[in-house]
Amino acid sequence: MDTRSVDLAVQEMLEVAFQNKIETAWDRLNSQQPQCGFGELGLCCRNCTQGPCRIDPFGDGPRKGVCGADADTLVARNLARSIVAGTASHSGHSKHLAHVLKKWADGKAPDYPVKDERKLLAVAQRHGIEVEGKEIKTIARLVAEVALEDFSERETPIAFANRTVTKSRAELWNKFGINPIGIDSIIAEMMHRTTLGVDADANNLLLGSIAAGIADYAGCHMGTDLSDILFGTPTPVFSEMNMGVLDPKQVNVALHGHNPVLSDLLVQVSREMREEAKMAGATGINLVGICCTGSEVLMRHGVPSCTHSVSQELPILTGILDAMVVDYQCVYPSITTLAGCYSTKVITTMSMAKIPGAIHIEIHEEDAWEKGKEILRLAIAAFKERAGRSFHVPQCKEKVIAGFSTEAIVAALAKLNQEEPLQPLIDNIVNGNIQGICLFAGCNNVKVRQDENYIIMAKELAKRNVLLLATGCGAGSLGRLGFMNGEATKAYAGEGMKAVLSAIGEANGLEGPLPPVLHLGSCVDNSRAVDIAVAIAEKLGVDTDMLPVVASAPEYKTEKAFSIGTYAVALGFPTHLGMVPPVVGSKQVVKTLTKDIRGITGGYLIVETNPLEAAKKLFLAIQERRADLGLSTRLW
Amino acid sequence: MDTRSVDLAVQEMLEVAFQNKIETAWDRLNSQQPQCGFGELGLCCRNCTQGPCRIDPFGDGPRKGVCGADADTLVARNLARSIVAGTASHSGHSKHLAHVLKKWADGKAPDYPVKDERKLLAVAQRHGIEVEGKEIKTIARLVAEVALEDFSERETPIAFANRTVTKSRAELWNKFGINPIGIDSIIAEMMHRTTLGVDADANNLLLGSIAAGIADYAGCHMGTDLSDILFGTPTPVFSEMNMGVLDPKQVNVALHGHNPVLSDLLVQVSREMREEAKMAGATGINLVGICCTGSEVLMRHGVPSCTHSVSQELPILTGILDAMVVDYQCVYPSITTLAGCYSTKVITTMSMAKIPGAIHIEIHEEDAWEKGKEILRLAIAAFKERAGRSFHVPQCKEKVIAGFSTEAIVAALAKLNQEEPLQPLIDNIVNGNIQGICLFAGCNNVKVRQDENYIIMAKELAKRNVLLLATGCGAGSLGRLGFMNGEATKAYAGEGMKAVLSAIGEANGLEGPLPPVLHLGSCVDNSRAVDIAVAIAEKLGVDTDMLPVVASAPEYKTEKAFSIGTYAVALGFPTHLGMVPPVVGSKQVVKTLTKDIRGITGGYLIVETNPLEAAKKLFLAIQERRADLGLSTRLW
Repeated sequence: MDTRSVDLAVQEMLEVAFQNKIETAWDRLNSQQPQCGFGELGLCCRNCTQGPCRIDPFGDGPRKGVCGADADTLVARNLARSIVAGTASHSGHSKHLAHVLKKWADGKAPDYPVKDERKLLAVAQRHGIEVEGKEIKTIARLVAEVALEDFSERETPIAFANRTVTKSRAELWNKFGINPIGIDSIIAEMMHRTTLGVDADANNLLLGSIAAGIADYAGCHMGTDLSDILFGTPTPVFSEMNMGVLDPKQVNVALHGHNPVLSDLLVQVSREMREEAKMAGATGINLVGICCTGSEVLMRHGVPSCTHSVSQELPILTGILDAMVVDYQCVYPSITTLAGCYSTKVITTMSMAKIPGAIHIEIHEEDAWEKGKEILRLAIAAFKERAGRSFHVPQCKEKVIAGFSTEAIVAALAKLNQEEPLQPLIDNIVNGNIQGICLFAGCNNVKVRQDENYIIMAKELAKRNVLLLATGCGAGSLGRLGFMNGEATKAYAGEGMKAVLSAIGEANGLEGPLPPVLHLGSCVDNSRAVDIAVAIAEKLGVDTDMLPVVASAPEYKTEKAFSIGTYAVALGFPTHLGMVPPVVGSKQVVKTLTKDIRGITGGYLIVETNPLEAAKKLFLAIQERRADLGLSTRLW
Repeated sequence: MDTRSVDLAVQEMLEVAFQNKIETAWDRLNSQQPQCGFGELGLCCRNCTQGPCRIDPFGDGPRKGVCGADADTLVARNLARSIVAGTASHSGHSKHLAHVLKKWADGKAPDYPVKDERKLLAVAQRHGIEVEGKEIKTIARLVAEVALEDFSERETPIAFANRTVTKSRAELWNKFGINPIGIDSIIAEMMHRTTLGVDADANNLLLGSIAAGIADYAGCHMGTDLSDILFGTPTPVFSEMNMGVLDPKQVNVALHGHNPVLSDLLVQVSREMREEAKMAGATGINLVGICCTGSEVLMRHGVPSCTHSVSQELPILTGILDAMVVDYQCVYPSITTLAGCYSTKVITTMSMAKIPGAIHIEIHEEDAWEKGKEILRLAIAAFKERAGRSFHVPQCKEKVIAGFSTEAIVAALAKLNQEEPLQPLIDNIVNGNIQGICLFAGCNNVKVRQDENYIIMAKELAKRNVLLLATGCGAGSLGRLGFMNGEATKAYAGEGMKAVLSAIGEANGLEGPLPPVLHLGSCVDNSRAVDIAVAIAEKLGVDTDMLPVVASAPEYKTEKAFSIGTYAVALGFPTHLGMVPPVVGSKQVVKTLTKDIRGITGGYLIVETNPLEAAKKLFLAIQERRADLGLSTRLW
């Protein structure tokens, strides 16, 4: 058994790497062994130059840092900084989108027209913007301004968080003083609080971190809303996933990173460049996705996903990837080293995210189209360069149905009940055909056999009629391994869920059932899962912490995953982490996050590295909520 | 020789600690040995859970983290996060002040009236606010709003940075793309850029960090301006420093932290509470300062400073400190443990900065006066509790003259030349009586014999006629050790400077010369040094990077010190660090900060741990600038 990945394409390409003596993330993980135990436990502090300080987890060595901070303080401070880094990332992404929308409204970004006016109006109305009689550009500007205002400290809580959850949830956040009044300002506040000699109270720091998590939720929701407005709200789309989507006869361009500002435009530009590619001897331009920006263009254009997360280096090793165009986040800087062994061009595009060894072509909204052409021309040149060279493409790919925006899910359900689209879903949760909902989010992590946790958990939960939602690299895992098509429902879903998904599929004219795992999009699109939960909660007249809805990040790695996990807890969901977070050095922090926090938000963390056990714990959490709602329950 | 501190009071109290088996920061430093070399070099990364990753500085072990980030990326990312943490701290402090000013203007903080209307008008006019015919409250609100706007991302650069430097400096920042457009937003941006897979280019990260440093400068300047407006612009004041200021017969209350919002109010409240203290058998209430909030009340009210930074725990060991009232920053959480051995009450006052074991009395501007009384009542109760108990107060204190705001310095110079107050200073720089100016900023660090670097450097530079400015714990070091009175000028200043300081002293009716080290205030008041430099530069028609002005942080420890050092470089000053910062793991980062950055801002870092050598290097940097200006130069 290959202990590095479940994915056969990855296994095959790791063999190519081995044969060619090319270093990958797995090799680097090996070379990092043993990793620092203090860091793993959260017991290392570098927040002033009297350190680095370390606390002995066994109590034999130092119990306090130079300043007197103890294990609880250190662990809480470190976690807080990780969470705000995640919040800064998601919200940086959405701020970028808000600027694009505003620029378009101001006539400065002609290549970025509003694609989905209906969504624009819906978002505008949610924020109390009067739309009657206004031009689209005016409404777009007002929406962009509401979004941008959310970053500044204000007198009212963040709009994109508070107006997208239940009223009682917003009130609960106010009651406990964890409702932030600005995205950037809570980031700054937590950075302040974690410096030497500011906040030493672990629980106080954790409450501040939850506020930062709620700001992250706002950033994610804003990212989804604005992407839908600018590039269209996804509708179900058929595509494929895995490295078999690379085509030696075409100019292969991987879109990697997170923000559709670049990748969506390149999809459009590539159509114009097809002839140029043909003149260079290619049959066309084959755009493929990697990581979340790949999910964005999959959701809206059916662009196939090539691979995800820890395996992002491997498409280069096929020898036929002509360009890897990146925006930001989760882009391993190693790709330029690998690309140096092939004809692949790595192109960075954002001023704030450069990589030594890459070609930097900076994308501004004002001239994005022309720059997009320049980028694709580099790919075409690379295609010519590789003519006649050997290559190795694993023939693995899976059929996927993606594009499940909240709107698309509601539309699909509306085919069963036009008046009350959510009713069929609720009825089936009540009657137990669907036991509950689990959102799979987060990354792959090189420390876990790639995709394994996802696969084991998804099989177990689907079998027990838990409807699965997925985003980001989690969606990538489940898509690449065949969980995102109707066949998967037949293979994995329990009888109740199979019946429901078949009925929806039939009503929507599909040839089979909906997949057991619905692809909601990129990491920011976890907000879509929240929207679905909030809609159900409002329909039932309960808060989100009453629902049989759980979340899981079985193989997470980024600081963004911490922020997402934090807001899942803030929204009241039992939230599973499949990796042990660096908090074990503090009993207090562990207790607060896994138990005590439940008394505040209703949500809590479940840390479980065994995927089978994890599935069981989540299923039992669902059953507990079902019991509280007076619904039928089942044993594992 | 006591290797821990030069300060005799500290030496004496460390002996008390030893006799009583009480653990201090020095003991904890010992227990932390050996400290992690990876962390010290900047070669440890905990920014995702695939780590912690470490780079082998000798090149034998791993050269890259799991993601492929190399030593340069790791070091630059870690430094960036430290700098933004410092920026978040200073600007959090100034944002707090802006809210207080706005609340007063809105009638919600009656205990916080504008004390210095002239400064309010000056700041308003600097920001283009029309003041004619407006009420003070209206102007205060407008100034507070300009301040608060600086935190949000805007279309124009940060007002408190750009309107307080030379025009050419602001243009230079624009030219190199390092002029931030929002304080909180650049903090968020850098947190985003330092997450997994965003910015991997060390120099790009360093430029972003310099932008964050400029935001820190804005935060500092705002802090100074708003404190002066609310609590009065300091004028020269006579006081004392060191633990001998504690008085067994009085209720001793230490004000510790950074923000005068609390400490200045307590000075006022304490007058009202004196009778209550007397009824408890005390001769009065003796407020003393620790760290920067201590400097704030020293500057404005002559409150004596008790001690600073690494020795903050020791006043508790005297047995007569009745309360330590803290706001935030640099407050060692160990103080509650130490206080537990005595009758000292530790009182935390800010919701964002709690310490386990402290009494928490939260200060809001709305009812601050009443809460202030409550706090002092706790101190009075503690005074009663300690009656008859043994105590130990070191009989060390030094006379100091403090209160040197920019306005106070200009006023003192105006006694020599009413029309052109700066002219005498400039003339004496030109004629060489004063060779240049050195700002001492930053902390003490338990890794360095407390105060030693300051003392050695100050003696060497004063002897060579370099005028010394000092802030924060640097000012504390030099004040506690007798460098802030007229006698010190006689003892340490070179002949040229002695003549100048004597002439100014005489013209101002002092009985002797001005001190060789002018106390500018707390850490945020480094902005006063910039104001002086900018005024000289504008008078000479040059930019700040042409001036014979240097900065030094000989014993720094906090992340705030990194931010201050960064803006000193951004302003064009040769900037000395007396501790090796955690960047040595990257040759590229070292080269950029010590050499290449000079080509951009004119400033650069000088890292030198030997204080004599450091003084020499700074003196030579001054000579180099003198030569460039065509002024006479001297050998070391």
